[in-house]
Amino acid sequence: MKKVFLLAILAGTQLVFGQNDSIVLRRLSDEILLQGKCYDDLRVLCKTIGHRLSGSVQADQAVVWAKNTLKDAGADTVWLQPVEVPVWTRGEEFFKLQTPRGEWLPIPALSLGNMEGTEGSVLEKEVIAVPDFKTFASLDASEVEDKIVFFNYAFRQDLVNTFEGYGDAVAYRWNAVNEAAAKGAAAVVIRSIGTNQDDVAHTGSSHYVAQGRKIPAMALGNASADQLFLACKAGKVKAQLMSQCKNQGTKISYNVIGELRGTDFPNEYLVVAGHLDSWDVGEGAHDDGAGCVQSIEVLRTFKSLNILPKHTLRVVLYMNEENGMKGGLAYADSALSKQEKHLFALESDAGGFVPRGISLEMPEVMKKKVQAWRPLFLPYGLHDFEKEGGGVDIGPLGKQQVPLAGLLPDGQRYFELHHTPVDVFEAVNHRELKLGAWAMAALIYLVDQEF
Amino acid sequence: MKKVFLLAILAGTQLVFGQNDSIVLRRLSDEILLQGKCYDDLRVLCKTIGHRLSGSVQADQAVVWAKNTLKDAGADTVWLQPVEVPVWTRGEEFFKLQTPRGEWLPIPALSLGNMEGTEGSVLEKEVIAVPDFKTFASLDASEVEDKIVFFNYAFRQDLVNTFEGYGDAVAYRWNAVNEAAAKGAAAVVIRSIGTNQDDVAHTGSSHYVAQGRKIPAMALGNASADQLFLACKAGKVKAQLMSQCKNQGTKISYNVIGELRGTDFPNEYLVVAGHLDSWDVGEGAHDDGAGCVQSIEVLRTFKSLNILPKHTLRVVLYMNEENGMKGGLAYADSALSKQEKHLFALESDAGGFVPRGISLEMPEVMKKKVQAWRPLFLPYGLHDFEKEGGGVDIGPLGKQQVPLAGLLPDGQRYFELHHTPVDVFEAVNHRELKLGAWAMAALIYLVDQEF
Repeated sequence: MKKVFLLAILAGTQLVFGQNDSIVLRRLSDEILLQGKCYDDLRVLCKTIGHRLSGSVQADQAVVWAKNTLKDAGADTVWLQPVEVPVWTRGEEFFKLQTPRGEWLPIPALSLGNMEGTEGSVLEKEVIAVPDFKTFASLDASEVEDKIVFFNYAFRQDLVNTFEGYGDAVAYRWNAVNEAAAKGAAAVVIRSIGTNQDDVAHTGSSHYVAQGRKIPAMALGNASADQLFLACKAGKVKAQLMSQCKNQGTKISYNVIGELRGTDFPNEYLVVAGHLDSWDVGEGAHDDGAGCVQSIEVLRTFKSLNILPKHTLRVVLYMNEENGMKGGLAYADSALSKQEKHLFALESDAGGFVPRGISLEMPEVMKKKVQAWRPLFLPYGLHDFEKEGGGVDIGPLGKQQVPLAGLLPDGQRYFELHHTPVDVFEAVNHRELKLGAWAMAALIYLVDQEF
Repeated sequence: MKKVFLLAILAGTQLVFGQNDSIVLRRLSDEILLQGKCYDDLRVLCKTIGHRLSGSVQADQAVVWAKNTLKDAGADTVWLQPVEVPVWTRGEEFFKLQTPRGEWLPIPALSLGNMEGTEGSVLEKEVIAVPDFKTFASLDASEVEDKIVFFNYAFRQDLVNTFEGYGDAVAYRWNAVNEAAAKGAAAVVIRSIGTNQDDVAHTGSSHYVAQGRKIPAMALGNASADQLFLACKAGKVKAQLMSQCKNQGTKISYNVIGELRGTDFPNEYLVVAGHLDSWDVGEGAHDDGAGCVQSIEVLRTFKSLNILPKHTLRVVLYMNEENGMKGGLAYADSALSKQEKHLFALESDAGGFVPRGISLEMPEVMKKKVQAWRPLFLPYGLHDFEKEGGGVDIGPLGKQQVPLAGLLPDGQRYFELHHTPVDVFEAVNHRELKLGAWAMAALIYLVDQEF
């Protein structure tokens, strides 16, 4: 773009932009849309390994898969970066409601991550339902003690941006357990944090506050949550909760890193990233198998087209985004201690849906530079370069003043399947996934040229 | 918007726009996202009626469903407009390939619409495969005579806009049969016109040229098409084709029309439309159950919020878009003969996916007016107001100089399921469908205020 004339007539439709760049970007898209491997890679990851929570056997298998896939993609070097990760296991579990006829009806439920269960024993208690924290705060401890508290706070469907809805509702997944424990509850169940109207339960991270009581916590399917809330309003409801989930210390796992050495500045790094771990249900296809295979696709595409980056391209497939963020911290710590110069970091961790734009977390002057590339992205459907943000795993690099960016896929379907058994390969569309990979390759190409 | 100040600082991010309009648009979105009925309506249409080709019993049922649903939505008047539609029926059919061991292997195949079959008899012939029309043109008639000609032209995956890919490939569905018939072929099969990599076959309209031989024509699943093409390159391949499909004259069916009478200009019409008929496979969920229930949602939402239009809002659910366009022609003929003044017509017939923009087909000065509303749509994810186009059914109104617009949903997934058995209710996302309905309601509201 430096050598070519850029003129964006913003008020009209005619754009004359960096022609050389636009030709390279078209070569990238032809390669990815016609010869791309990311969709096939995702099939292998999802169907031969499946879900892969940190510390699990499948996570170990995913590390091996990632190493081999990066080598096959043409990385000059592939290496493993040790990360100490928590080991949390689910085991068997159920949540049952007593019907008016006295039968016990199991409903879709998943223990929340990092919680302790009942060690396999059955907790049989009355359920007290509240719509939100405010109502709960108005309750006396005597109304809560020894009961299962049910928070039925619903994901706000009126918000067009589903990530805002998530940010709003996720407080219940994160802290309802501590609020309830403090008032003497026996356990907590929450309405799942999802936009779905069906009965698929969503797991996800929770935590215990220091010195708090460690009571069990589960998320219920939303259709069942609707029924339970009505039943609790109508009368006394008893439930049985059983969970074998538990925290089992830590274990060494790995970030998997593949490099394409820079021709001019080999000691300056461009990071393109996803996270290798997933929750222990479904196949972690959108979250975040998609981000991993897209990141690998960026490297593969450059190598395949012999577009060698001036700076070293590092594909970083982080471990433990879901329940600890240890991979992101380990990578940033290592970068700091080795005094590695990071020029830029880009993460894809919002699903393999059709890309809408790129979020940016960097100084205003840099942001303007990236936003000026918008005309190059518009023909590919990316229009939104206004949102702030990078990604969870690259966040610690941001604290070291590394400019961050995040792929912004369309978010309407993400919270139907996020952290659920239905986040499977079949829920990913090959063209949407590849267009996301293209957007990442295009951005990295432009940053490599211009930053 | 007339009363408020509109200032769009196009080069920046700050927009101060029609505040009253933006408040009404938010009311529309709250109503549709929280109380919308379109998704439930679509479930009923798809699951209690299913597919509904013109002239079928299901199409008759869909007319009754549409009439009742429009009444329930609050239409002042609902009426049926007679349309003479073709009656084409599929019956039983198969396409089988002979394996090297001599067995007959059935592969996914669908007769193309408007074609004649084999009257149930089995046509056993050699297959000759060609990649495209150009190669076919170079063949001598002696190479083609009495054979099944297989056109393996693939949907171009490199085009980001899938509708361009469709426009390019659909020539094979429309005319391969006539090219082959002219050279003496016994039948034609084509690679399905779709972006899918699996083996789902796509039907759709074809036609016979006048005086041409009426040979059978089918579309094959794409995975099978790949295999067949390789097999034909490797040696002689025999196939059996059987089809009972036939044209059976015409029948009277109906466009279903519901009105919300205008407060100020009751004799001036705003049309919001979809088409009620579908192909005779799947459930016609995206094509075009989505457009029908979205159009009904526009009326329901205005009525429910007591936002009464100044001009008469007409929801027109057209019959026979798929294989004749008779409904679109009948409506426009009637409008002309009654000298009805049509201010505007909007169609949704590109799937119930997340809306990306609105296509426009109108004089430049009007187009500019609509494009100036872009800042009002951006918070809802609609950014593209540059594409030309309206819709097939409202096209004949366009010839009477009525300004046309089309909802532009994201197109990446549409041609995976278009005209296939997998275009079912489950393939539609409730939030995406509702956001499309919102975009239609918002546009109609603004046009009613400003045109």
